[in-house]
Amino acid sequence: MEKILKISGVPVTELAKQYGTPLYVYDEKRLIQQCQSYKQNFVHPDFTTEVLYASKAFSCVGMLRLIKEQDLCVDVVSMGELATALEAGIDANRIYFHGNNKTLEEINYAIEHNIYHFFVDNLQEADALKACIEKTDKVLSVMLRINPCIEAHTHEFIQTANIDSKFGISIYSRDEIKVLIQSLKTHKQIVFEGLHAHIGSQIFEKEAFIKEVQTMFSFIKDLEQDGYSCPKLDLGGGFAIHYTDQDQPIPIHEVCQTILDACAQQQVDQKTHVKTIMIEPGRSIVGEAGSTLYTIGFSKQTPHKRYLFVDGGMSDNIRPCLYQAQYDADVATQMDSRKDQKVCVAGKCCESGDVLIPEIKLQPFSQGDLLIVYSTGAYGFSMFNNYNRNLRPAVVFVKDGKSRLIVKRESLEDLLKGDVR
Amino acid sequence: MEKILKISGVPVTELAKQYGTPLYVYDEKRLIQQCQSYKQNFVHPDFTTEVLYASKAFSCVGMLRLIKEQDLCVDVVSMGELATALEAGIDANRIYFHGNNKTLEEINYAIEHNIYHFFVDNLQEADALKACIEKTDKVLSVMLRINPCIEAHTHEFIQTANIDSKFGISIYSRDEIKVLIQSLKTHKQIVFEGLHAHIGSQIFEKEAFIKEVQTMFSFIKDLEQDGYSCPKLDLGGGFAIHYTDQDQPIPIHEVCQTILDACAQQQVDQKTHVKTIMIEPGRSIVGEAGSTLYTIGFSKQTPHKRYLFVDGGMSDNIRPCLYQAQYDADVATQMDSRKDQKVCVAGKCCESGDVLIPEIKLQPFSQGDLLIVYSTGAYGFSMFNNYNRNLRPAVVFVKDGKSRLIVKRESLEDLLKGDVR
Repeated sequence: MEKILKISGVPVTELAKQYGTPLYVYDEKRLIQQCQSYKQNFVHPDFTTEVLYASKAFSCVGMLRLIKEQDLCVDVVSMGELATALEAGIDANRIYFHGNNKTLEEINYAIEHNIYHFFVDNLQEADALKACIEKTDKVLSVMLRINPCIEAHTHEFIQTANIDSKFGISIYSRDEIKVLIQSLKTHKQIVFEGLHAHIGSQIFEKEAFIKEVQTMFSFIKDLEQDGYSCPKLDLGGGFAIHYTDQDQPIPIHEVCQTILDACAQQQVDQKTHVKTIMIEPGRSIVGEAGSTLYTIGFSKQTPHKRYLFVDGGMSDNIRPCLYQAQYDADVATQMDSRKDQKVCVAGKCCESGDVLIPEIKLQPFSQGDLLIVYSTGAYGFSMFNNYNRNLRPAVVFVKDGKSRLIVKRESLEDLLKGDVR
Repeated sequence: MEKILKISGVPVTELAKQYGTPLYVYDEKRLIQQCQSYKQNFVHPDFTTEVLYASKAFSCVGMLRLIKEQDLCVDVVSMGELATALEAGIDANRIYFHGNNKTLEEINYAIEHNIYHFFVDNLQEADALKACIEKTDKVLSVMLRINPCIEAHTHEFIQTANIDSKFGISIYSRDEIKVLIQSLKTHKQIVFEGLHAHIGSQIFEKEAFIKEVQTMFSFIKDLEQDGYSCPKLDLGGGFAIHYTDQDQPIPIHEVCQTILDACAQQQVDQKTHVKTIMIEPGRSIVGEAGSTLYTIGFSKQTPHKRYLFVDGGMSDNIRPCLYQAQYDADVATQMDSRKDQKVCVAGKCCESGDVLIPEIKLQPFSQGDLLIVYSTGAYGFSMFNNYNRNLRPAVVFVKDGKSRLIVKRESLEDLLKGDVR
């Protein structure tokens, strides 16, 4: 093994020198492969299918331009994500607008920019949407977010389908849902197209997705019997990725096949008439393709720990603090050494909780070596915060031995830009 | 009681209309009162004293300008905080540079800008500091961060003095500390001035501070006996504030008196020669003076919860998710009604964990009412993140019936500024 790690043929030392650290580095080929894998595997003779990239995982113009090139649709959850998708040139008809509490400003902004697809989360949103669209001569497609009340085994925060979830209308409120669908179907500027469900994040069990499919088809059968057709069904995302060797995610082709086979089976069993199946991968497209490069600074021995400090921390990756998320890492400039140094990787933020990896065995290292933390491509950049007035790292894509800047590193000038002098 | 809440004489409806929501609102008089309270109470005939504002709690040019006017010193933990303090016109000699892993870029930037006071966290930092200062003809004052190994009763993340803390050198490593002090004292461009300790955050017990004082004076006595004088002692911060009625913080005058009396007593008991006592309040200066205003959006009933959704959430206040921090709130446009509506206040982020207050009784409300969440002045703005590409709210100061903009609301243009097109 070579001493210096290369990402897509570019030595990490070159990346650090050219762009500075901390640095979010994405393997562009891997991003493309993940998109292609979904495009190629999420197909079935019985259905039309659509893959929506859940852009909250990693949204910036460069990433969404790649999504456009790969011909995926995009799901956005705010005006900011919507503006980013539009700036990247994504066709307005390929953008789906999610969110439990879209503001009127956001709804009007979306309508103004010809966004056609809305996921409606609740009764009040349906009313707001009607009021906004009635001020125009446009037409909207609406899918209703249902809470299928299935609990997947994942962190409480990112488990979205427990019975009291803030998302969607509970599947047990059938009468309420039917009244709402009726009011949407009869609105002359709204096309009611179907249902959306999402059962959580970082899910490893095929059974959870099968259960979701069964639950939703069974519900659609009930609706169809009452005369409400649901041509589209969006099953959300939540496909797990590999953070550490403890994670054994379902391969993309298997998860796609599992979901679509279950849908086909249910279509036969329930005698339903669903035409389109949609999914929303986010993390599983960008997570493993992204890594964070840090420069190793000081280190310190305490009675029971040896600290390795990096030049970033909870400002560029808050997931370890927020979800006790686990990551794997390497001393990227000492790859040919054995990983026999037990350390705690901590950040530079002025807070005890600012620990990226509580315990890991790494290669021997010195100040100035580079550390790479893997699988930070999802919810790293997207959850960046300026805590301690730390500056947002740059984002680069690397491919075939070449790197290109996607998002510039924040400058002190940028940081102070909003301050009234 | 009037229906519409006023902050320093300005109705919240006016603030929302003029600046939009979410909005960070600070009562400027209260900020000044807190500064004055520390200035006036942290005095003692036996010592000179210094109050350092821990700017990580809330750093922006407007706030630091107020600190300058109130004649407090400032502690900064990064180049970004340092640049903010300088931009506000704080004298370089009134700035103290903290941090467990200052980068070489940061150290050089600080020296270049004539920062004189450094808190050194570890051995390697001392070496780095020497190397950097030797390239100049300047002189630095250094205080050493000691881990006093006292556990205050607070959240694990913000408890900074457990034995394996990432901060400082353990007080049990006496020989190591003495060797380090010796090397600092004999360096011709370094003035060794004393010790720093910090025992945690949001501390309610006087005893914890007394214990800290005893521990540090006892250690200083040991050092003095070996010929190492420590004229300055910085006891850090961690002074609790009122978030909800469950919190009974020690009043500022009491905490100041407790600390200084304990220092005076210890000075006599230990026969030490400490000249200056310093403290670093952050949260207790800005926390209660700041509130967040939200517009109430949709609401929703689930089997066991009634949700009230606001137009912000974990992007503008991550503390409930990160530390299970509790907050109090009011429907600021229905203040004359009884608080008899049990709700869960949740945000608009596309994440189940995005809950600001899991359960609270509020006044009856409708869509469009304003919600005020109290005591968000510390670590609200400072931990803001663009999760979901949400835009950073504006910051305003309000005083004597007038408001003024301190930090502008982020625009879509700002959000996309770093993106390479």
